[in-house]
Amino acid sequence: MRIGVLGRGMVGRALSGKLAELGHDTRIGTRDVASAMANTEAARDGSGTLAEWAARTPDVQVATFEEAAAHGEAVFNATAGMASLDALRMAGEKNLDGKVLIDVSNPLDFSRGFPPSLAVCNTDSLAEQIQVTFPGARVVKTLNTVGAHIMIGPGNLAGGDHAMFVAGNDQEAKTFVADGILRDGFGWKRVLDLGDLRAARGMEMYLPLWLSLMQANGTAMFNIAVVT
Amino acid sequence: MRIGVLGRGMVGRALSGKLAELGHDTRIGTRDVASAMANTEAARDGSGTLAEWAARTPDVQVATFEEAAAHGEAVFNATAGMASLDALRMAGEKNLDGKVLIDVSNPLDFSRGFPPSLAVCNTDSLAEQIQVTFPGARVVKTLNTVGAHIMIGPGNLAGGDHAMFVAGNDQEAKTFVADGILRDGFGWKRVLDLGDLRAARGMEMYLPLWLSLMQANGTAMFNIAVVT
Repeated sequence: MRIGVLGRGMVGRALSGKLAELGHDTRIGTRDVASAMANTEAARDGSGTLAEWAARTPDVQVATFEEAAAHGEAVFNATAGMASLDALRMAGEKNLDGKVLIDVSNPLDFSRGFPPSLAVCNTDSLAEQIQVTFPGARVVKTLNTVGAHIMIGPGNLAGGDHAMFVAGNDQEAKTFVADGILRDGFGWKRVLDLGDLRAARGMEMYLPLWLSLMQANGTAMFNIAVVT
Repeated sequence: MRIGVLGRGMVGRALSGKLAELGHDTRIGTRDVASAMANTEAARDGSGTLAEWAARTPDVQVATFEEAAAHGEAVFNATAGMASLDALRMAGEKNLDGKVLIDVSNPLDFSRGFPPSLAVCNTDSLAEQIQVTFPGARVVKTLNTVGAHIMIGPGNLAGGDHAMFVAGNDQEAKTFVADGILRDGFGWKRVLDLGDLRAARGMEMYLPLWLSLMQANGTAMFNIAVVT
């Protein structure tokens, strides 16, 4: 299918590259294509500059937020959480209406250094703010609880025996994401439906523990499993 | 050793009963002993009223917060998070000074129903508030991420192959709790030190996800494992 991935960082690159590899007609969106392609800053994951990554990934077309969203039958929000609402406004409400919007972002505020705080939490979440701002979008929260490499390759960690969560108000959209994207696409074996989009609060509020675990483990290559 | 457990709810009962079983001279603290012993409300865990539980648990003496804290060489805070600072004030700063204070509480605010919100989070935590209010206490945050039965019996779930976290500013206190209480006492095999007490933010902010998982699983008998 046609998919738009908003955000050209490590997460957006990993997702769009994998989606193209799976046969989806994928575009990756950024604010300003010319300026992003001219950016000489290399990503921390070794994928280089955007131009270098794009040259190695010819199946993914670099586009504006608006073009990527208009292109997609489903749209991923893989922008930095603090910039997500702006990026989605640039993508355009009409380009999100009626579409499954898969929100993988976290509202991490690094303005006071590391560890970041959350810009929204407790009685609200970024996913809920996105849903309220774009009521026509079918928002599904998922994948925000793991690093980019685990998102698209859960089998590379402990044979895939660990947990992914989904939350959203639209059951059909959630089933599409859980089965079509996570299970059949990326290979997630243990997808747990946490209910409506209010459950995104817990998924986003897990981030401070994730950051502590990353520091304790010395790597982002980990996840949690739910043991019953 | 002599241990004081503040809080006569399910968590305080489970902890004090287990500690006594392990041979510790244990007292359980409540605001007003006569009124608590006369309370006819049964706990949700099937342990009955406090009087019924106390009759079955003769090795644990029911005392006031102050008596329990004065008695303990180490003190557990197992009170409801919204009442913890008040309970600790009643226990008395002089009865906490220099002692290991094991904080297992969560700042859950049920005033707007279920699910609860957190009364403090993000840039602060209840454990840090306790440490600031009682600077002489050696606060260690732990056990707040699981239900009472798993706290004292991790081996009853998946052979104990799941995670417990500790955080605190006093390394000696943390080692005592991790080794002396969690590992050798309760049987925790996988205790992960998350660093200083700021890590309590992540441990407390995990609660909304825990509550979603409890609803999805239909039981509190679960925990997370860290998969690397």
